[in-house]
Amino acid sequence: MSLESYMNQIGQQARAASRLLAKASTEEKNMALFAMAEALEIARPKLIEENAKDMKSGEEKGLDSAMLDRLLLTDARIDGMIEGLKQVATLPDPIGEITDMVYRPSGIQVGKMRVPLGVIGIIYESRPNVTIDAASLCLKSGNATILRGGSEAFYSNQAIAQAVILGLEKSGLPEHAVQVLNTTDRDAVGKLITMPEFVDVIVPRGGKGLIKRISQDARVPVIKHLDGNCHVYIDDEAYFDKALSIIINAKTRRYGVCGAMESLLVHKEVAEDFLPRIVYAYQEKNVELVGCVASQAISSAIGEASEEDWYTEYLAPKLSVKIVNDMDEAILHINKYGSHHTDAIVSQNYSKTRVFMAGVDSASVMVNASTQFADGFEYGLGAEIGISTDKIHVRGPVGLVGLTSQKYIVLGDGHTRDN
Amino acid sequence: MSLESYMNQIGQQARAASRLLAKASTEEKNMALFAMAEALEIARPKLIEENAKDMKSGEEKGLDSAMLDRLLLTDARIDGMIEGLKQVATLPDPIGEITDMVYRPSGIQVGKMRVPLGVIGIIYESRPNVTIDAASLCLKSGNATILRGGSEAFYSNQAIAQAVILGLEKSGLPEHAVQVLNTTDRDAVGKLITMPEFVDVIVPRGGKGLIKRISQDARVPVIKHLDGNCHVYIDDEAYFDKALSIIINAKTRRYGVCGAMESLLVHKEVAEDFLPRIVYAYQEKNVELVGCVASQAISSAIGEASEEDWYTEYLAPKLSVKIVNDMDEAILHINKYGSHHTDAIVSQNYSKTRVFMAGVDSASVMVNASTQFADGFEYGLGAEIGISTDKIHVRGPVGLVGLTSQKYIVLGDGHTRDN
Repeated sequence: MSLESYMNQIGQQARAASRLLAKASTEEKNMALFAMAEALEIARPKLIEENAKDMKSGEEKGLDSAMLDRLLLTDARIDGMIEGLKQVATLPDPIGEITDMVYRPSGIQVGKMRVPLGVIGIIYESRPNVTIDAASLCLKSGNATILRGGSEAFYSNQAIAQAVILGLEKSGLPEHAVQVLNTTDRDAVGKLITMPEFVDVIVPRGGKGLIKRISQDARVPVIKHLDGNCHVYIDDEAYFDKALSIIINAKTRRYGVCGAMESLLVHKEVAEDFLPRIVYAYQEKNVELVGCVASQAISSAIGEASEEDWYTEYLAPKLSVKIVNDMDEAILHINKYGSHHTDAIVSQNYSKTRVFMAGVDSASVMVNASTQFADGFEYGLGAEIGISTDKIHVRGPVGLVGLTSQKYIVLGDGHTRDN
Repeated sequence: MSLESYMNQIGQQARAASRLLAKASTEEKNMALFAMAEALEIARPKLIEENAKDMKSGEEKGLDSAMLDRLLLTDARIDGMIEGLKQVATLPDPIGEITDMVYRPSGIQVGKMRVPLGVIGIIYESRPNVTIDAASLCLKSGNATILRGGSEAFYSNQAIAQAVILGLEKSGLPEHAVQVLNTTDRDAVGKLITMPEFVDVIVPRGGKGLIKRISQDARVPVIKHLDGNCHVYIDDEAYFDKALSIIINAKTRRYGVCGAMESLLVHKEVAEDFLPRIVYAYQEKNVELVGCVASQAISSAIGEASEEDWYTEYLAPKLSVKIVNDMDEAILHINKYGSHHTDAIVSQNYSKTRVFMAGVDSASVMVNASTQFADGFEYGLGAEIGISTDKIHVRGPVGLVGLTSQKYIVLGDGHTRDN
């Protein structure tokens, strides 16, 4: 079969499955998630075996150790996938929820019902557990899924797919509710993102390069997560102790997460007092600092920041520091250089926090809290499929609700429209 | 200046204006809308004069009478624009609304704040009053607007634009909050829909051809309204009188609106009883009927429907009729042939209405009500910029809220994340 025919068949099967999934009851979906968990447990030796093939060829291809680590399936990671399936089963089902139902002057009642998007295409790299994360969230939100993993995890992904399908078959939900592409042909991605008749939305999970490429070529909407170049602004009306604990946590809790602070802005009135102590605290954590000329004048431990530094998401023990004249300058800086992901102010001044919240154009705006809170679990979404840096459809951490839409429901009793 | 430079300048100005508009207070925005209304009133003679130029060249170009009618600005239509501006001023401001604010186990509070999308590009044909409709809704929702009207309404649109800018200047809001392109170059549209750095979303208003073309070529999200191929399904447990008044209203109240019923589905158990009386009622209204073989066997007044008819939005006194074996067949037919706009069931059976509401994949699903209710005013949105037949971002009538997004707000008091 040609790639074109294969992809069309996958698309048609997904569309057909999505119609059935949209009608599936909460119990049916939960039973399927539990059945998938059980099938994964049974397939455990097979998963380890198939993963070993990927690991071997990854080593032969000379993948770096970080990539090999992401690729590896251990017993603990399989436990994690199984646990994840069970957790998604316990989340409330967003589908069918009716809200805002009101009587209108004409006598009709108008409200909104939450419905699935339809078919979601997931394109991801290396980590095979994404297969389960993505499939479970899409299934619970009533969507059919087409998954395309990285070629380096091909055997692992196929083995996981077999377990998923076994679970689906046992549960009575359509077996095509979750499909994993069985080809490593790059053109399959090109086709997947350009068939709006079969695919309603694409969620890419991986490096910035992958996401940019997909966004550029897609003919269907993309829920995308680009960088997290996050800022903390320390106002002149901040308490030092609060500020210090927030910025240390925001930078050093984990360096590699998208909610990590990459740039620190300090009000000029407190810079001479705060900055030396801040530098000392970061030095203890071995965080490299680069900054503006004014910050360098205060501390010789701060290197020179280039224009490029202000745009950079380091994801590493490195931080750029800038002294600003006032909050307005901080807001302008964040909106210009930031990535509209997560930005925070530390201040005791009520009025300023109001202006900062309204003025910063980011998916999450925080007041007196660490940017590392930017996460679906911390926000109460239960789980997340990614963090959207777009404004269209869904913004910030994307949980089950982000994978749904709403339709209007109109209830009458023979009502007709007069004029 | 080259078209490229001109469009980049327009885009930069819009982006800069959008930052200021996002911070504008409700009062400032309302004052601007009233100032625009006053400026239109003063410009009334000028509007009529400039519109006469468009009418003259339209007649010379041989535009048809329907198109010329849409193009015409009368005193009554200028009254309508002025009234529209004042009405939008009275609508509640969606921007800044904070919802779902809850305490999380970590101690932080998480909620969502409603924010503007940023810059909205509107591409429309002939009717010059769209300039005011679109500009007022975008302004109230805190968005900057770039408007590109049809070349046939060039002088009218420019005159309206001058009044709008005069109003903006008086109000103190940025003059680039609303910009009307001063070129009829077709490449301007191509550029407008491919500059994501300046434009956040495109709303095309016009014929299906225009909308398809724009959706295909756009590199920014499009809020689009394709056809309204709406259905009413009369169940075997429907009361005849309710069914008749609904389907007469759904078809004949207005033929040219997107909420008009284009296809009638009748359960086979009631077809022989209901259909002759339905045919009689439509004949009185001079509605042409085409239908399936079974319906033709019941009434000789029903012509033959082709496969194409089931897909067709007539927007005219014509209706396709199909007899179905049961509700499931009706739902399958609607999801296959319909345009996912608005579809209704007439039935007294509680269980069936539940299944129909969940099963029909349309922007509006109605129970015992006329499809002609599908409208932003009837739904309580106050005004609408269009009706979205997409599932992404906004679905159904699009009012002020549809032109906004949300950001997460996190409030702490020195909170840091532990693990």
